[in-house]
Amino acid sequence: MPGMIQQLRDAWDASDSMLCVGLDPDPDQYPRVLRGDADATFRFCKEIVDATADLVCAFKPQFAFFASQRAEPALERVCRYIRETYPHVLLLLDAKRGDIGSTAEHYAREAFDRYAAHAVTINPYMGTDSVEPFLRRADHGVFVLCRTSNPGGGDFQNQDVGGRPLYAHVAQRVATEWSAIGECGLVVGGTYPGELKEVRALAGDVPILVPGIGAQGGDLPGTVEAGADSRGRGMVISSSRAVLYASDGPDFADAARAEAERTRDQIRELSNR
Amino acid sequence: MPGMIQQLRDAWDASDSMLCVGLDPDPDQYPRVLRGDADATFRFCKEIVDATADLVCAFKPQFAFFASQRAEPALERVCRYIRETYPHVLLLLDAKRGDIGSTAEHYAREAFDRYAAHAVTINPYMGTDSVEPFLRRADHGVFVLCRTSNPGGGDFQNQDVGGRPLYAHVAQRVATEWSAIGECGLVVGGTYPGELKEVRALAGDVPILVPGIGAQGGDLPGTVEAGADSRGRGMVISSSRAVLYASDGPDFADAARAEAERTRDQIRELSNR
Repeated sequence: MPGMIQQLRDAWDASDSMLCVGLDPDPDQYPRVLRGDADATFRFCKEIVDATADLVCAFKPQFAFFASQRAEPALERVCRYIRETYPHVLLLLDAKRGDIGSTAEHYAREAFDRYAAHAVTINPYMGTDSVEPFLRRADHGVFVLCRTSNPGGGDFQNQDVGGRPLYAHVAQRVATEWSAIGECGLVVGGTYPGELKEVRALAGDVPILVPGIGAQGGDLPGTVEAGADSRGRGMVISSSRAVLYASDGPDFADAARAEAERTRDQIRELSNR
Repeated sequence: MPGMIQQLRDAWDASDSMLCVGLDPDPDQYPRVLRGDADATFRFCKEIVDATADLVCAFKPQFAFFASQRAEPALERVCRYIRETYPHVLLLLDAKRGDIGSTAEHYAREAFDRYAAHAVTINPYMGTDSVEPFLRRADHGVFVLCRTSNPGGGDFQNQDVGGRPLYAHVAQRVATEWSAIGECGLVVGGTYPGELKEVRALAGDVPILVPGIGAQGGDLPGTVEAGADSRGRGMVISSSRAVLYASDGPDFADAARAEAERTRDQIRELSNR
């Protein structure tokens, strides 16, 4: 099995796409044809995956949406389905784990063995040893929260540490120390292209997950310009709600595909400028 | 139903104890009598809970140990059992959640509705709006990671921000802004009593969860002196492995009780000095 970063590079090449579809299954927003279906969560995710798999470099299931509805078994099935049916696509579990080493080992088992994810999102606050159990797992990797796009993202991330914001220190540590232990990416929201550019300058060719495109109102042209790596790639640009809930009619999968295709094409055009 | 902090005060009074038993069920360490039992995880936790409930102010199930073994149904049963059988004990889910607002709402439902926890541990890195969905839930609360006791805890938490470490800024924001929105505690490891004292001075009577006593080698006398609030209480001092795995023989529950009683008595003596 290739390592996580090689898997991602292959996915960029195979799809010629930096789009990621985030799987945030919210029963209140399911298409009407699936409401009341006991297997709605798996079926909804499977339809979205099948409709968009050739347009994306990655799928990103969001753990919270499964956990709040007791749907870990559906999450397991969605993950296995993606790995088996679309082996060229990166499977990135968005669970934002972070705990002391002995506990982090259990989270690594959960993400990589139980859910078969190539990579998992991680919170850096607890430091190096909280990430090591993930990094030491061959062929797998982490995406580390750096600068997030939510309104309070700057509350601590933008605190000034020796003349630079905290998130810049996170970016640098990930790009140097943590990447020397295992395979790392960073998470930087799409709302502030200036900060994304700063992170890219610090992080070299470390891949960057950019959530917040689509419903969250991220700046796509600014993002593509600021976040590209030395080869014009380097990003996993994630859209969730705008794709998932493009229609609640029986055409929901087609509508999701159309929205994903539109976003992929927009990213392609912007990165070819 | 009383709020989380009143629930905790009542628990301190009813038990005359600041001890918390952490439930970190690791199948590799189960007593031999339970190995091979399909319901071992629930049975092990129930035996530990029954053996120690009168000695503690709180139980703290650690999510990762259930998640790595596909045991969310057992976690649900353990949580319901504690709430129904020992209603005076605080139920604190240790899951270290942290995500943007709309996703955090799903984590709040998971912790408070699905698992019926009074409180959940939270990572502050994503800022105020990532915590608000938890704070806005009446009768519930959060314990926010501040200074953790693991080897890399200082990597970012001790970064100097305007002359004070980052964790001091977290403590202050929790004690002022976040406590004005909802009910908050802090998490400060037992390894560095000087830092615990600093946090206590910043945080007034905000309750502090102190993990890392017992197997993790925390300093109990230093902790009790440094962390007490104005009424000589104020802490939830958690021991996990030292209690859970005091014996792997058929006497495991009695051995857990003996270890918990010893630790409770030690805390009592130290806080009466």
